[in-house]
Amino acid sequence: MQLGDLQLLQSLLAENRWSSVFILTDENTNKHCLTSLMMCIDFPVNPEILEVEPGENSKSIEICHQLWWALNDLGADRNSLLINLGGGMITDLGGFLASTFQRGIDFIQIPTTLLAMTDAAIGGKTGINLGNLKNQIGTFQNPVAVILDQAWLETLPSREIRSGFAEVVKHGIIADNSLLKACFETDVSNQEEVFQLLEPSLKVKADIIAIDPFEKKERKFLNFGHTGGHALESLTLNDEDPLLHGECVAWGMMIATLLSIDGGGLEAEAAKELIRSIDSYYPDIQPEVEIEKMWEVMLRDKKNRNGKVNFVLLSKVSKPIANVEISMEHFAKACDDLRVMREEL
Amino acid sequence: MQLGDLQLLQSLLAENRWSSVFILTDENTNKHCLTSLMMCIDFPVNPEILEVEPGENSKSIEICHQLWWALNDLGADRNSLLINLGGGMITDLGGFLASTFQRGIDFIQIPTTLLAMTDAAIGGKTGINLGNLKNQIGTFQNPVAVILDQAWLETLPSREIRSGFAEVVKHGIIADNSLLKACFETDVSNQEEVFQLLEPSLKVKADIIAIDPFEKKERKFLNFGHTGGHALESLTLNDEDPLLHGECVAWGMMIATLLSIDGGGLEAEAAKELIRSIDSYYPDIQPEVEIEKMWEVMLRDKKNRNGKVNFVLLSKVSKPIANVEISMEHFAKACDDLRVMREEL
Repeated sequence: MQLGDLQLLQSLLAENRWSSVFILTDENTNKHCLTSLMMCIDFPVNPEILEVEPGENSKSIEICHQLWWALNDLGADRNSLLINLGGGMITDLGGFLASTFQRGIDFIQIPTTLLAMTDAAIGGKTGINLGNLKNQIGTFQNPVAVILDQAWLETLPSREIRSGFAEVVKHGIIADNSLLKACFETDVSNQEEVFQLLEPSLKVKADIIAIDPFEKKERKFLNFGHTGGHALESLTLNDEDPLLHGECVAWGMMIATLLSIDGGGLEAEAAKELIRSIDSYYPDIQPEVEIEKMWEVMLRDKKNRNGKVNFVLLSKVSKPIANVEISMEHFAKACDDLRVMREEL
Repeated sequence: MQLGDLQLLQSLLAENRWSSVFILTDENTNKHCLTSLMMCIDFPVNPEILEVEPGENSKSIEICHQLWWALNDLGADRNSLLINLGGGMITDLGGFLASTFQRGIDFIQIPTTLLAMTDAAIGGKTGINLGNLKNQIGTFQNPVAVILDQAWLETLPSREIRSGFAEVVKHGIIADNSLLKACFETDVSNQEEVFQLLEPSLKVKADIIAIDPFEKKERKFLNFGHTGGHALESLTLNDEDPLLHGECVAWGMMIATLLSIDGGGLEAEAAKELIRSIDSYYPDIQPEVEIEKMWEVMLRDKKNRNGKVNFVLLSKVSKPIANVEISMEHFAKACDDLRVMREEL
């Protein structure tokens, strides 16, 4: 897999190795990103555009089924290329689409959100949802390339950028102290500052995946903050104004940090310090969901097994440990304690 | 991937590395094979049985969707095992199911037909159909093991065995003269004789796949006889008594052999000799479909590109060449010539 900017995309296309090119977009990226992509890039063959509705609901089997047919009807063959232009929904869905059409065609990810840039587009995970169950169906398949361009960040609301920033912070927490320090000195409203963090952040992820591509061991560290985060996200999905993925992960990282005191041996002072820093970016993310419901969702999480809930915790900052079993009582107490602690910050 | 008998399955299960075990069957294998499997094997955890209707129609996205839900509802997790007990439909469908559920769980293939033993179960190709388009959706994913047992052949009608035999012959034609000679000395009504051919036949396939797992070059040789064969199969799928896959491949191998005289440089005498041998096992396979319709299907075949139809041909017996472009006129003439030649045999 290659990582680069639009120039890399141009030079890959110039090699002319694909029989046809398809671009998957949603309404938003079709409106805000596609024109500029078409102006910047000289396509050797005129690409066909596939468009789905924005939002998590498009990551469904039904939409995927329609897209398989669309590729087929538009004459896609094994030598076709699919370019996925969009946020994590598009890169996940398009990655799955490409990795299963005719047993796999080439695809290139062009993530247009910070979240997709730092998380969804690299690492080879593709996925669609089974009902409300996130990424229950998917594959591991690397794209030919991931194309990053700062210009897309300008198309994003600031809340989206703050959401994606949580994954950058996560990479700092699990593996890179200097990245973490840089994160907590960053003004998230400054796109250039944020974009600067991407390279070290992606390096953390790429290094981990190189060691453990199929999530047998080290790759699990990347799930730090995601056990609680995913549960929160699932339960608020149908709210009028649902929480964003990164916002949920930010809360999930705070709860995992607190659980790390008993469960991982993290020093209480270090835990409090880290929670204070995360909270300063996400003071408004205070979930009001029932612990029992959250627990049920966590039990169904594909990362858990045998009816137990496992967390990634910290023994120190940048020293994560995977598969720490936590009881519901312990989790419930941590949720209460976190609420009290944050009120006192 | 390991290849072995029921003892291998028993020893894998005894390692107790899976949290739960699922067995995918169709009505036929549920009736004829499952009881004997359950009697031979001591399962450490009681397996859950999934059953689909027999026949190609179960290799659909709708059925796959139901099976994803079934796995989910029955508590399958990333450490579950899926055992696929059946013919090629079950091993293809079950392989796809396992390779996409939660981004891939372990699976074991237990092919119960000769065709699945020699072709479908090994090589890591999984697939479901998109409408009438065979294996249009799929993945490359190796099973943990393929389990072969001669006893299953006793459950099969003789026509099924003759059909699977075509794939064994194919392996002889493309790579192993002594296997080919043994094939043409075999009495296909004798299950033991046929089962003896499996090992050298699977060796041909395994050797080719080891060199070229993703079908970039040598693996294409395994498609010998399949360009014409698949088209014939598609067009007769809805007949009252449809031709079997291997029967179609037998015809496809005869037409490819004839095309090889002009297209591959195969000596006319060698071609005639080979066609005579194949015909002696499949004298009744005389397709009556329109050439134009067959051509249309071949144009849509995922192995073709840019509106051209490519065949795997022979320059000599056991010396295949891939990607030989054939025109519709040439193909139509070969169909006529083959009919005349076979009448005169």
